[in-house]
Amino acid sequence: MNFPEKVYINEVVLRDGLQLEKKLVNVEEKELLFKRLTRAGVQSFEFGSFVHPVRVPQMANSGELYSKIQQAAGTANLIALVPNLKGAERATHLGVSNINYVFSVSETHNLQNVQKTTLESLEELQEINNFCIENKISLDVSLATSFGCPFEGEMPTDHVLSIVQQVTELIINTLTLADTTGMANPKGVFQLVSLVRSEFPKQKLRLHFHNTRGMGLSNILAGMNAGVIHFDTALGGLGGCPFAPGATGNVCTEDVVHMLHSMNIQTNIDLEELLKASLLLEEIVGHQTPSYVFKAGPYDKKYPVPISS
Amino acid sequence: MNFPEKVYINEVVLRDGLQLEKKLVNVEEKELLFKRLTRAGVQSFEFGSFVHPVRVPQMANSGELYSKIQQAAGTANLIALVPNLKGAERATHLGVSNINYVFSVSETHNLQNVQKTTLESLEELQEINNFCIENKISLDVSLATSFGCPFEGEMPTDHVLSIVQQVTELIINTLTLADTTGMANPKGVFQLVSLVRSEFPKQKLRLHFHNTRGMGLSNILAGMNAGVIHFDTALGGLGGCPFAPGATGNVCTEDVVHMLHSMNIQTNIDLEELLKASLLLEEIVGHQTPSYVFKAGPYDKKYPVPISS
Repeated sequence: MNFPEKVYINEVVLRDGLQLEKKLVNVEEKELLFKRLTRAGVQSFEFGSFVHPVRVPQMANSGELYSKIQQAAGTANLIALVPNLKGAERATHLGVSNINYVFSVSETHNLQNVQKTTLESLEELQEINNFCIENKISLDVSLATSFGCPFEGEMPTDHVLSIVQQVTELIINTLTLADTTGMANPKGVFQLVSLVRSEFPKQKLRLHFHNTRGMGLSNILAGMNAGVIHFDTALGGLGGCPFAPGATGNVCTEDVVHMLHSMNIQTNIDLEELLKASLLLEEIVGHQTPSYVFKAGPYDKKYPVPISS
Repeated sequence: MNFPEKVYINEVVLRDGLQLEKKLVNVEEKELLFKRLTRAGVQSFEFGSFVHPVRVPQMANSGELYSKIQQAAGTANLIALVPNLKGAERATHLGVSNINYVFSVSETHNLQNVQKTTLESLEELQEINNFCIENKISLDVSLATSFGCPFEGEMPTDHVLSIVQQVTELIINTLTLADTTGMANPKGVFQLVSLVRSEFPKQKLRLHFHNTRGMGLSNILAGMNAGVIHFDTALGGLGGCPFAPGATGNVCTEDVVHMLHSMNIQTNIDLEELLKASLLLEEIVGHQTPSYVFKAGPYDKKYPVPISS
């Protein structure tokens, strides 16, 4: 097995993590969370999305949040998700300089999610790409349902590779293969990612996993074995699946950082500070999160030997 | 990465899974669970332990359970955990023909658990080995805290290897390296297991992981990459850690079987039947289990496309 020396975490709790939370999280709470996370050393954030506020009310304050955090961010990377050119224009108008355009490899999922065919989204990507070049904006692309679609099932490898090829012909900073609803398995991840890396060796890759079926950390392990060192994670593992009530969400930042540190892989993140952010998160959302390490503590915590009676 | 074609599951819910449950599970409930699990295709069980009933009340009916299930077991393997020669004698007197002797690599943990030094446990193992040879009993050995001790921390590799060597000099059917309190990480598992396999290539190995810090499936993945195809798992992931309230227990059978099947690795277990056993388990213990797949359903479940309004 191959393990990297260092891994880069992109924290998505403020976007994908909170997106489906019932209680609306206000901008002050988001700012507080952001500051705790930067204090823990997190250097990259998907902080919000510029979608229609009626569709995703939790993201309606993304612009306001950006204006509050951009100074405190320092050298941290602040990425805004956009579903279309209009979103890209709104975000960059506020000064956002990193955007992430998302569409689905699965036609059915894309139609559900953004009311476009995959081809239409690819066409819009060209416009966004031109817009970003003109305005000196860094453009990322996330391919949702890369490892399977809840409507269509498995995605044919050739289809995924064909879309990756069309995307990589443009000027894309980071391409993210996303397991939107937690269908990926470690073997599939290793195989698809190895293929993408060998066919498009110059494209910077990121992986986005959900822990819906408990395989999130295993998929990260498989991704690292295929040579990837960039991963999306969400504090507390927030971001439940709309199709499976009670199922968990994104792979959990604390648990990922803890696993990496236990394997002597650097992240530049302070786990103890991260767990303080995790506590704040539970207070803000008002419920427990599925994080393991938050409950159990780190592997290297030593316990006193009980005194026998 | 290397993936095997087939993996063999040893189901430990009736022993390690139930051991710390507050509600006493009676012998009829255990029998029912056992029958559901055999119907799902499970072919190997650690069904109970012959320890002092005052120390582990949940295991007090292990002998009675054995007399009830041995006929229905058919070709399934029924293994009894024993902490000493007396336990081995009691189990085999009832007709049990597979025993698993457990002691800890960590001196402090062994003193806590069985009130013996590791050397004293090794000496007792020799007596048990002789007893098993005389009585034609199959003897397994489980080395607790092989991947770390909650009191002593990391276990030096040389120390673990030295104990493995002393054990493998005897006639041991299966040697289990156990991560008793969920401290193992995938890199450590891959390294230790690779070493043990290269130094003791003839010894059949099994791995026993807890999911305390969420790394259970990842550790199985690492174990498979190091060539192991035998794993302990517990239905529902039962078996919480005495040191971490709220922390989860053994790696979960449903989630392991689901991951393996999604990777085209055979187990001879029917996941759908297994999930029925999982439902029964929740009814018996009276609380939810930490299983992911029980909540979310399998990866290949397709959802109807919502009708737009």
